[in-house]
Amino acid sequence: MRLQLATWQEVDAYLKECNGIIIPIGSTEQHGPMGLIGTDALCPEVIADHVSAEAGILVGPTISIGMAQHHLGFSGSVTLRPTTLIAMIRDYVLSLSRNGFERFYFLNGHGGNIATLNAAFDEIYAERSMQRGSNQPGLRCRHKDWFAFPAARRISKECFGDREGSHATPSEISITQYAYPDAIKSMPEDRAEKPVRHFTDADDYRALYPDGRIGADSFLASPEVGERLVKECAKEIIEDFNGFVAQP
Amino acid sequence: MRLQLATWQEVDAYLKECNGIIIPIGSTEQHGPMGLIGTDALCPEVIADHVSAEAGILVGPTISIGMAQHHLGFSGSVTLRPTTLIAMIRDYVLSLSRNGFERFYFLNGHGGNIATLNAAFDEIYAERSMQRGSNQPGLRCRHKDWFAFPAARRISKECFGDREGSHATPSEISITQYAYPDAIKSMPEDRAEKPVRHFTDADDYRALYPDGRIGADSFLASPEVGERLVKECAKEIIEDFNGFVAQP
Amino acid sequence: MRLQLATWQEVDAYLKECNGIIIPIGSTEQHGPMGLIGTDALCPEVIADHVSAEAGILVGPTISIGMAQHHLGFSGSVTLRPTTLIAMIRDYVLSLSRNGFERFYFLNGHGGNIATLNAAFDEIYAERSMQRGSNQPGLRCRHKDWFAFPAARRISKECFGDREGSHATPSEISITQYAYPDAIKSMPEDRAEKPVRHFTDADDYRALYPDGRIGADSFLASPEVGERLVKECAKEIIEDFNGFVAQP
Amino acid sequence: MRLQLATWQEVDAYLKECNGIIIPIGSTEQHGPMGLIGTDALCPEVIADHVSAEAGILVGPTISIGMAQHHLGFSGSVTLRPTTLIAMIRDYVLSLSRNGFERFYFLNGHGGNIATLNAAFDEIYAERSMQRGSNQPGLRCRHKDWFAFPAARRISKECFGDREGSHATPSEISITQYAYPDAIKSMPEDRAEKPVRHFTDADDYRALYPDGRIGADSFLASPEVGERLVKECAKEIIEDFNGFVAQP
Amino acid sequence: MRLQLATWQEVDAYLKECNGIIIPIGSTEQHGPMGLIGTDALCPEVIADHVSAEAGILVGPTISIGMAQHHLGFSGSVTLRPTTLIAMIRDYVLSLSRNGFERFYFLNGHGGNIATLNAAFDEIYAERSMQRGSNQPGLRCRHKDWFAFPAARRISKECFGDREGSHATPSEISITQYAYPDAIKSMPEDRAEKPVRHFTDADDYRALYPDGRIGADSFLASPEVGERLVKECAKEIIEDFNGFVAQP
Amino acid sequence: MRLQLATWQEVDAYLKECNGIIIPIGSTEQHGPMGLIGTDALCPEVIADHVSAEAGILVGPTISIGMAQHHLGFSGSVTLRPTTLIAMIRDYVLSLSRNGFERFYFLNGHGGNIATLNAAFDEIYAERSMQRGSNQPGLRCRHKDWFAFPAARRISKECFGDREGSHATPSEISITQYAYPDAIKSMPEDRAEKPVRHFTDADDYRALYPDGRIGADSFLASPEVGERLVKECAKEIIEDFNGFVAQP
Repeated sequence: MRLQLATWQEVDAYLKECNGIIIPIGSTEQHGPMGLIGTDALCPEVIADHVSAEAGILVGPTISIGMAQHHLGFSGSVTLRPTTLIAMIRDYVLSLSRNGFERFYFLNGHGGNIATLNAAFDEIYAERSMQRGSNQPGLRCRHKDWFAFPAARRISKECFGDREGSHATPSEISITQYAYPDAIKSMPEDRAEKPVRHFTDADDYRALYPDGRIGADSFLASPEVGERLVKECAKEIIEDFNGFVAQP
Repeated sequence: MRLQLATWQEVDAYLKECNGIIIPIGSTEQHGPMGLIGTDALCPEVIADHVSAEAGILVGPTISIGMAQHHLGFSGSVTLRPTTLIAMIRDYVLSLSRNGFERFYFLNGHGGNIATLNAAFDEIYAERSMQRGSNQPGLRCRHKDWFAFPAARRISKECFGDREGSHATPSEISITQYAYPDAIKSMPEDRAEKPVRHFTDADDYRALYPDGRIGADSFLASPEVGERLVKECAKEIIEDFNGFVAQP
Repeated sequence: MRLQLATWQEVDAYLKECNGIIIPIGSTEQHGPMGLIGTDALCPEVIADHVSAEAGILVGPTISIGMAQHHLGFSGSVTLRPTTLIAMIRDYVLSLSRNGFERFYFLNGHGGNIATLNAAFDEIYAERSMQRGSNQPGLRCRHKDWFAFPAARRISKECFGDREGSHATPSEISITQYAYPDAIKSMPEDRAEKPVRHFTDADDYRALYPDGRIGADSFLASPEVGERLVKECAKEIIEDFNGFVAQP
Repeated sequence: MRLQLATWQEVDAYLKECNGIIIPIGSTEQHGPMGLIGTDALCPEVIADHVSAEAGILVGPTISIGMAQHHLGFSGSVTLRPTTLIAMIRDYVLSLSRNGFERFYFLNGHGGNIATLNAAFDEIYAERSMQRGSNQPGLRCRHKDWFAFPAARRISKECFGDREGSHATPSEISITQYAYPDAIKSMPEDRAEKPVRHFTDADDYRALYPDGRIGADSFLASPEVGERLVKECAKEIIEDFNGFVAQP
Repeated sequence: MRLQLATWQEVDAYLKECNGIIIPIGSTEQHGPMGLIGTDALCPEVIADHVSAEAGILVGPTISIGMAQHHLGFSGSVTLRPTTLIAMIRDYVLSLSRNGFERFYFLNGHGGNIATLNAAFDEIYAERSMQRGSNQPGLRCRHKDWFAFPAARRISKECFGDREGSHATPSEISITQYAYPDAIKSMPEDRAEKPVRHFTDADDYRALYPDGRIGADSFLASPEVGERLVKECAKEIIEDFNGFVAQP
Repeated sequence: MRLQLATWQEVDAYLKECNGIIIPIGSTEQHGPMGLIGTDALCPEVIADHVSAEAGILVGPTISIGMAQHHLGFSGSVTLRPTTLIAMIRDYVLSLSRNGFERFYFLNGHGGNIATLNAAFDEIYAERSMQRGSNQPGLRCRHKDWFAFPAARRISKECFGDREGSHATPSEISITQYAYPDAIKSMPEDRAEKPVRHFTDADDYRALYPDGRIGADSFLASPEVGERLVKECAKEIIEDFNGFVAQP
């Protein structure tokens, strides 16, 4: 069940069984010549919907804009400053915490979010720990990248090998092709630039990777691989989420 | 075209024709016994998609969480503090501005966002105006509530009269029923509490309106009315957007 | 009684009778060729003083600088960024709340403040609602624009009709003429520009309205009308304030 | 001339002669059994008005609420957090800077503001100095406490000697008695607590100084002394301001 | 050369040769029964001093307090909120940038800082990238953890194998023993708790790891191993720094 | 004992005897042709170490970077914005407060920090005082400048008279010469510029004082005077600290 498609009474009922929620988080940024700008948000959203359908876990609204400063050299990319994203995640968590949620599971689709996600959790914890004498109930946050689950790594390796790359990968594009068949794009079969070194800011990124991809042969993507990724990752996420919620 | 479903080259091409974008903004908050928690975000998103399909206007990712502090008394409601939402809107606008967007049209679905939206625009303008000597190009923001367009008022009046109310209205629920037929809920035909006075905080709201509705007979909603609302509002929005972009 | 002219023991005594306070809020911004830069702060201050004299309600120090980014194209205009004004209102309210005030009635003289005032109230409420487990007492904020009371609208309509306009209006200038007779200015009887569309930033405003007025024939102002406005608005404000404080 | 009582064209004319402005800043806080809560804001405002009348210097709207956290143990005291006051001073200065002001002279009436005023100036300077490559024009800020001018010290010593004390002093109360004769209060001739050590927070202050005064025999105040203070301080302030504006 | 032990003319001379600087960053937090609270700051500082002695690279003052919210359950631990640390790093970098530094190399000694360091770099880059039209020169930031260099891993593996653990490790304690022989502490040879799962906040950490260590047999530390670690890591850091500065 | 060289159990034991801590705070900024850039941080650190050795008082890690915006015109100077430093001091204090510290004694070495230190304390107190209903324990902060103790003034007067000046003074340089004999620098015996007026921003400072000193004949410094300063100031600081901790 998506939180957005529930009523408040349904949430009340859910909270009697489970105090955990999955929150997809992605980014809005260029994904090379054929990858969708929304790829990083759409992938965890699609997977989370599958998780929800399979296991009845509540899914909050997707955080579609993340930390993507390094992509600002390309039209259509949008970033939040890390401090803005920290504030947003804090408010999201504390709002739900008010009515009984205590386990927040962020399903992430964008490597550039990882640092800020961790910083946001630390911000929440630090703020509360410094308030000696407060009466607040506990809460816990976890984030997991869908592409780091064993299933994702296994399928990627099997289907794309070292042509997966690290940005605008055929894996992530496969998922969007599976979920948005009307938005499948094509490109010439140009091999991508291999990563030479870690980029820094937007100008540096664009100079290093002029078409936006990093080592990824996006054109290898297919909806069939996307379907496998969604379904097999979902299984592992359900298990991981259940373990998280069951922690004493 | 949704920005999320475009490539950066497609955005580059779009910018040659038009420097404006529509950004749906809503909220994640209780909508009474049968209204969806995502109603306020889903409605402008659905309408914007229709606008886009009709007129080729680019639509940015929806801001699904807005300012909803007054609904925090009900499970599942989420708010951003106004200062967080201001920071988010600022980053969204300035990111797109970097590559050439100059007209930002926020299509809003939630009355509680109006003040913060206006404050956010003023924050952006003020910050730039105080920086005497900067070289920044101009930009303009506008927000419009879908429910305040003449078409929305006319259809609401015709279909629901004074039973429309002001929260969890049959109009907004009709739109979600049209767009999400699998998520149609029902409720007893209980007449809603009429608004007695303006609420203040979350405790106050819940005390005044125990089932979450304000004066709205949500159960009058129908997908058919939803379809009319979407299509007729879209026409007026296209015209309004075009006027905005055409301003010298 | 003005808070500024009271002692703390007098405030202690007042709090035994009433936990409400009126806080005038305005702006420091150009008001056309004959309007005073302080008009928007002076008007609610003058009215609040009359309210206080009539009904013994405590009046806090005026917030003289508000949100006026759109006037920065004219010398002497001053703005706070919305986030600064939000912080200021928050501190003002929470300070007084510490010693027992619980009803905060902002009497506003500037349309440009309305959004930020509402955002500030939401910021205060949101911050507290998210702190599950805190022991803070309740508080309520309300703002009212003096120029939106029925008395103000009635007198404006009767005296100035459609020449009232919306910035540097003869009504507001009348009040400052009544209260500051030594600072009455004159101008040629030039009819003002009619509003064509809503302005955005400071450059846009100045381009649209070169002498600073919007549709207002300021030169129609008179101290006599000012006196009527002050006295008749005050009556309605007293009633509204009393209703606010009496809310359960 | 008060900025609040000027038109924008008058400010334009003033800027042709002088790019400096005086900004009174005070506080809203308890001043013992007979001192007014607004004392610290009213004193510099009254003196600045005299300065303006004598020398034609422009006076901006008074910052009536300052940093008074240590007085929050008494009803009616209001404080801004230092970070809020810094933001406010920054916006005030940068707003006026946009149209040509470059010398900002804060006339201060409250010892508790001094640290934050200096921090605010440093914030403004630091922010600009870190922006290597910006095109911003220069600006300079100065603050002076009216009570630290030689005239103030001389009159205080002559009239009150060691009974002046340091909070709710007969000097500052004399000025408010001169300017607000209708708000003169009385108290028993109780000698004030002498300061034992520096206070820290609001609870500490109230415990050390239960009636609010620090070493000040407020009851020695008189309107006549107030008049002398205003007039003689004003002379020295005019000279100091002129030197500030004349700096190359 | 430590920046703290240089004169500004020496820095001017250095900038003619090199625009890079090493900034040690650590933490102030419990390190179990025998580890020093300053371990994470002292280790990179000691190594950076050796780097500087060997290669003449300038070393800025150590950031001794980092992000350590999870250690607040133990006395003496200090944390900055991530947003505070981001602001601090930003100011540090932009200050040095003003006079010509363009390569900022943070040598990190604390895993808990990694997320916030990355977020801080993104904050700096994002802030600048959003300011279309600014004239700021470029800058680049890199962070490296001393314990992740091959030399550190090799020596740790050789000397401590799987008893190294991940907090209060014998490696890091060895370095402090080498550098601070007067502060060597001892403890019983109790094997440490093995990590069961990732901790969240301070209460959770303390419950999982009651003596503060995570899987680390701190008592295996020795000054001799510390000396090897310092000298061999320094070699690799010099090479890495030179590559960073040489980037086009 | 330095906190950095203690274990958490040692801190637990210390807290049974004393809830106070000394925190050295300085700056990283030019100190003229022979003064070290770290002078202002090194001096209080050296003195605090002596205090600790003599009296067993715990010393927290030095805040090495302070408020030094006015020195940004010289290479190697680093500043925090006042708001950043306020946040940092707040976090430092509240972290230690969590586990029982209640008296925070900042030993300061830089005049430019004084305003921000006071503002930081007020920020901490204000934040807590506004939270009516919280359960937080009390805490108190004090700052003292080492150079303002009678011993420092006496020795300076005796050794350097009116050639002490106010920046890059022979006194402070003497202390660094005593503590860092390997970093003693020399300069020609040029008499320093006398202060003409108070500086404002970095450009102004550099224009007024081209070699960085203000009225200070730095070349008079000697390690012997440094030793006297450290030892005699330490005695007075111990007494002052003990009085602070003993306050009821």
